[in-house]
Amino acid sequence: MERALVSNLKSPVPLIPVVGKHITLSGGKRIRPAVLLLCADACGYRGPRRTVMAVVTEYMHTATLLHDDVVDLGTVRRGKPAANMLFGNSVTILVGDFLFARASQLMTEDGDIDVLGIYARTLVSLTEGEVLQLTRTRDAGITERQYLTVVYCKTASLIAAASETGAVLAGADPATRGAMFGFGKSVGMAFQLVDDILDFTGTEKELGKRPFQDLREGKVTLPLLHALREADAPDRETALRCLAKKEPGKRDVAFLAGLVARHDGIGYTASRARSFIRGGKRFLRALPDSPARSALLALSDYVVSRTS
Amino acid sequence: MERALVSNLKSPVPLIPVVGKHITLSGGKRIRPAVLLLCADACGYRGPRRTVMAVVTEYMHTATLLHDDVVDLGTVRRGKPAANMLFGNSVTILVGDFLFARASQLMTEDGDIDVLGIYARTLVSLTEGEVLQLTRTRDAGITERQYLTVVYCKTASLIAAASETGAVLAGADPATRGAMFGFGKSVGMAFQLVDDILDFTGTEKELGKRPFQDLREGKVTLPLLHALREADAPDRETALRCLAKKEPGKRDVAFLAGLVARHDGIGYTASRARSFIRGGKRFLRALPDSPARSALLALSDYVVSRTS
Repeated sequence: MERALVSNLKSPVPLIPVVGKHITLSGGKRIRPAVLLLCADACGYRGPRRTVMAVVTEYMHTATLLHDDVVDLGTVRRGKPAANMLFGNSVTILVGDFLFARASQLMTEDGDIDVLGIYARTLVSLTEGEVLQLTRTRDAGITERQYLTVVYCKTASLIAAASETGAVLAGADPATRGAMFGFGKSVGMAFQLVDDILDFTGTEKELGKRPFQDLREGKVTLPLLHALREADAPDRETALRCLAKKEPGKRDVAFLAGLVARHDGIGYTASRARSFIRGGKRFLRALPDSPARSALLALSDYVVSRTS
Repeated sequence: MERALVSNLKSPVPLIPVVGKHITLSGGKRIRPAVLLLCADACGYRGPRRTVMAVVTEYMHTATLLHDDVVDLGTVRRGKPAANMLFGNSVTILVGDFLFARASQLMTEDGDIDVLGIYARTLVSLTEGEVLQLTRTRDAGITERQYLTVVYCKTASLIAAASETGAVLAGADPATRGAMFGFGKSVGMAFQLVDDILDFTGTEKELGKRPFQDLREGKVTLPLLHALREADAPDRETALRCLAKKEPGKRDVAFLAGLVARHDGIGYTASRARSFIRGGKRFLRALPDSPARSALLALSDYVVSRTS
């Protein structure tokens, strides 16, 4: 799969594989390919189409990362300069488009209209999630339910696509396919909530990017959302003032982080993440026992215990 | 088709149809849908799938326009403020992604793997063309052959996809399908060369954008490429100095435009465009006479006679 990730970046335009390799080989966790490969295996398919679809999933993810770097004016990603800092916004956008295009090409060569449908639907979700998040920037009025919709769209939908695709490759029945979708969705929800937590608790070294980046970008994630819900009126008003600033200073960030600490926004979010993971594991009961199924259980535990 | 262009922008995220309508309804020429609808008709298909595929083609085009506006730092498009000026780069990129996604969704719902293959391949070409153009910015060393590759990738490939899709909808035999691809490719090459000409000869009102925009962006299009080829050494050196500037001034632009005029870069490019159109018309001989075929001949003439 790692080899195929690189070989499919080939293009007569030499800059494309250069930028593509920069982002592809900068040490992502490969959670989406892992979910796809293991779900296919756990459902009974171990053939070569797994590799192609794992590449499709990772390219879709990588394309959204490239566009996010431009959208969020990112400077560091996975511990290295973000692509937009090295290659400029234009090339970064276009190589993102190239990865979407190559993923589509790999799927049409594979020829499974079911899989194409899953990823088309997911790409709609991913973009809707990103736009929704942008329109909710610095908006302290977002409800937990609305926030979880953003999380589903921008993160969980693609992990659910990966797990569902695994089931489709194995020719699973609709119930198993639904269970695999449910598993990926649950893991994806937990994965994003843990990302939200790490923005508060991680170091730059662990994260590969600056901590409190979500706060600086005005993203009201679940830890802050919970704290705002629990805070008294004066604290809430101060928080809204900090949050309203286009470029919050150190003191604003410190106040918001302190508020999250005082109302245990981290503990609350972690418990929500663990609850998603419990739900995800229940979906795996639909599968027979196997090493791949055990690995999916271990992957679930990793998602809520990881520190980077 | 116009109704379907709007109705398929629907999304639970209200900003998406707002931005989508801004760009979709700002008065494009609809050359790609026209080619698709007429080619399908001329090959014998007049059913409802034409509308869907015409929308797919126009969405793909519109998505690239949105990303181009960010890439080229566009300020005016189709006589209105470019989307990035009104909605910011982030939303513009993401709504472009949404349009790619919706186009994929429409194709997978339609379910024709042949059509999906055409557009996947074309999307790869479109992005390669844009990156190639970027890497050749302010590069006076580009050959006509290399420039025509850029033109094929960034413009003609999508018009060829539209005409080929028309043939596929009609269930045409491989020879007819190939001829329709050839027709769209020729029309697309001519269309872009005329665009290059209009950048020199059109008024802001006719173009819906500032004239000499390509020159200011350091794009060496065919009129300039021809003039550089014909110029004597001192003129060529002055031209290279003008072209090398990241922000060329009025005098630089005037010198380059004068050089193009002296060496009749416009006349040369127009003759190349007419030659592509002659080639395109020859491909239409493969089809029986019909009103749609006559309309394609008229469309071909329009492409090289248009002034906006």
